[in-house]
Amino acid sequence: MTESQVSAEPGQGGTVAGPAQAVPAPTYEGDFVLDEHLLLDCGRTLAGPTLHYAVYGRLNAARDNAVLVCHALSGSARVGDWWPEIFGPNGLLSLENDCLICVNLFSSCYGSTGPGSVDRETGEVYGPDFPLVSIRDNVRAQGRLMDSLGIRRLRLVLGGSIGGMQALEWAIVHPERVERAVIIAVAPLSAMGLALNHLQRKAIQQDPDWHGGYYLPQRPPRRGLALARQIAMLSYKAPPLFDDRFGRNPNRNGEDPLGLDDLGGGLIGGRFDIAGYLDHQGKRFIDRFDANAYLAILRTMDTWDPMHGHASATATFSRIRARLSFVGISSDWLFPPESVRNFAYTIRAAGVQADYREMTSEHGHDAFLAEQAELVKLLQ
Amino acid sequence: MTESQVSAEPGQGGTVAGPAQAVPAPTYEGDFVLDEHLLLDCGRTLAGPTLHYAVYGRLNAARDNAVLVCHALSGSARVGDWWPEIFGPNGLLSLENDCLICVNLFSSCYGSTGPGSVDRETGEVYGPDFPLVSIRDNVRAQGRLMDSLGIRRLRLVLGGSIGGMQALEWAIVHPERVERAVIIAVAPLSAMGLALNHLQRKAIQQDPDWHGGYYLPQRPPRRGLALARQIAMLSYKAPPLFDDRFGRNPNRNGEDPLGLDDLGGGLIGGRFDIAGYLDHQGKRFIDRFDANAYLAILRTMDTWDPMHGHASATATFSRIRARLSFVGISSDWLFPPESVRNFAYTIRAAGVQADYREMTSEHGHDAFLAEQAELVKLLQ
Repeated sequence: MTESQVSAEPGQGGTVAGPAQAVPAPTYEGDFVLDEHLLLDCGRTLAGPTLHYAVYGRLNAARDNAVLVCHALSGSARVGDWWPEIFGPNGLLSLENDCLICVNLFSSCYGSTGPGSVDRETGEVYGPDFPLVSIRDNVRAQGRLMDSLGIRRLRLVLGGSIGGMQALEWAIVHPERVERAVIIAVAPLSAMGLALNHLQRKAIQQDPDWHGGYYLPQRPPRRGLALARQIAMLSYKAPPLFDDRFGRNPNRNGEDPLGLDDLGGGLIGGRFDIAGYLDHQGKRFIDRFDANAYLAILRTMDTWDPMHGHASATATFSRIRARLSFVGISSDWLFPPESVRNFAYTIRAAGVQADYREMTSEHGHDAFLAEQAELVKLLQ
Repeated sequence: MTESQVSAEPGQGGTVAGPAQAVPAPTYEGDFVLDEHLLLDCGRTLAGPTLHYAVYGRLNAARDNAVLVCHALSGSARVGDWWPEIFGPNGLLSLENDCLICVNLFSSCYGSTGPGSVDRETGEVYGPDFPLVSIRDNVRAQGRLMDSLGIRRLRLVLGGSIGGMQALEWAIVHPERVERAVIIAVAPLSAMGLALNHLQRKAIQQDPDWHGGYYLPQRPPRRGLALARQIAMLSYKAPPLFDDRFGRNPNRNGEDPLGLDDLGGGLIGGRFDIAGYLDHQGKRFIDRFDANAYLAILRTMDTWDPMHGHASATATFSRIRARLSFVGISSDWLFPPESVRNFAYTIRAAGVQADYREMTSEHGHDAFLAEQAELVKLLQ
């Protein structure tokens, strides 16, 4: 299979990145369109799907300074927007020496083919018929993008959460193409993780505006998606952090949860501060994300098992040639540090060079985004 | 204030409890109706409200063998149905010597006055206008029930979760009337606890059948209530327990979460086993509980702060004359053991005789119901 060439290649057009900034801008951002059908793990195909990607820094002449950054559930290819300190001053990476590439996941709503895209075969929007695209499907397609950019080998692949799933899958699917992989705050989803995703899914499905996924673009299931995001937020944060920040305070807008002003009228009282915060997070999210895309990525996340399709754990992991670093976060209860550590040790038992590092943080799962400087220190 | 007498008094009718059984039956179950208005902490009143209660065993001649058992969020006065091992063979209590009384919480749907009851002043169902009834309001009314039964002093008051809130509040509100209180798996709700309740509330409010609480009895917000219950279930259980029981197994009815049978069609795949379990729990719950009652009790739980209305922690807790035992559960993440312990120590610092015990269990918050024999051992 060959791929269509992207209209402009990063590092080829003479664009030179300036000194690292607080929020770096991509040197290139564009689409890569596969010129034929992508056969998916589930047995279906995507006809000529698009991968949207962003590039920061420039590829050197040897094309051996490429670093692939993989984003998490609701992220985008614009890694400068959500992980700026990774390659800011004192960052892990430098825009002088490294060429960072970040690819939007299939199923997402930030440029790659997803449920909101038109199926090139039927000419209609996929909607709820969008197929299950696995992490491995993503990684295979990302490999073709690298081919098109003339990148044979990645110096580093890294990501947190679903990004970490992709980073590890890269080391398995493309063993000769990865020098090092950093896998942060992830392991195959536990039963609690599956449970959290199931309830998020239900929150969206139960919104009467969802209409089985056939909602109108101007009337999406906003309340269901907001509730899904809020359920997820609980799992991204650590309880002590919530206590420190919000405690049992009334909502900062002056609501009265104790019902003294309104004589305890009604079943729904004034909000506590944590409730106001969660509602705010829900509102912010529905302005930037699509409900069907969210459902599709939840399924991608749920079904990820790197051993799937391989004979055994040893058969899966002994393929790996890269050096791996796993990072657990002390207060993460979605992917608890002990499960990340055990996962690392399982992989090491297959003869892989893999270390485990632990980030001490109060932030919970989100620490890899909330405390980037700490993460950088741990990885340097 | 005087109260109407109950039509039959336990321990007076000559009913003798038989030997302890697996699921003991009450020796008496009935209603106590306050014969005037109950002034609530929020400033409103309940006109002649009803407390439904059940009695197990018999009151002795001195009426000094009464034990009050306080139920949790969705429990009922029939403690024999949900906590049978507490007074079964080798239990903490004995139906030969003790007289157990359990009172249904206001706002509940198991017999005491709640949102589904008729307001005696207006002749109409309260519905969503039902006022906030605090834990302390409940405990004051329970005190009047004890008056009516001729019980001056309780040998023991005990309960888990919201039941524990009541047990502690008894020791504060009625200091001379409580000999010992056992407070299990509870402290004032943390920010994470408030967050979980907020999302449960939203799940119900977002059900189009909720209609602001004015739903038809034959068409209640079933899906919203089921989702609320499922969110709560996550907080009642410990993640390792879910892993042991459900892992990443497909739902036991044969669904296919990996989408191999249906070629990954659609955004909603077959369920994992944990999802099937949660859906089952949701379905079971909506057959036995009312959505407005659920909302009302969430608010009672949210707003509980034993120090409310007192000048300080010392002023609150130094009132206590009872011996207190606090029980934390090692795997509880809704009321983590360290927060129960810290709460116990805060109270002890006010000069109260209070000990802290920890139950080692994989069951999470639910352990006080799921591992009753272990709890009994810890308390004996």
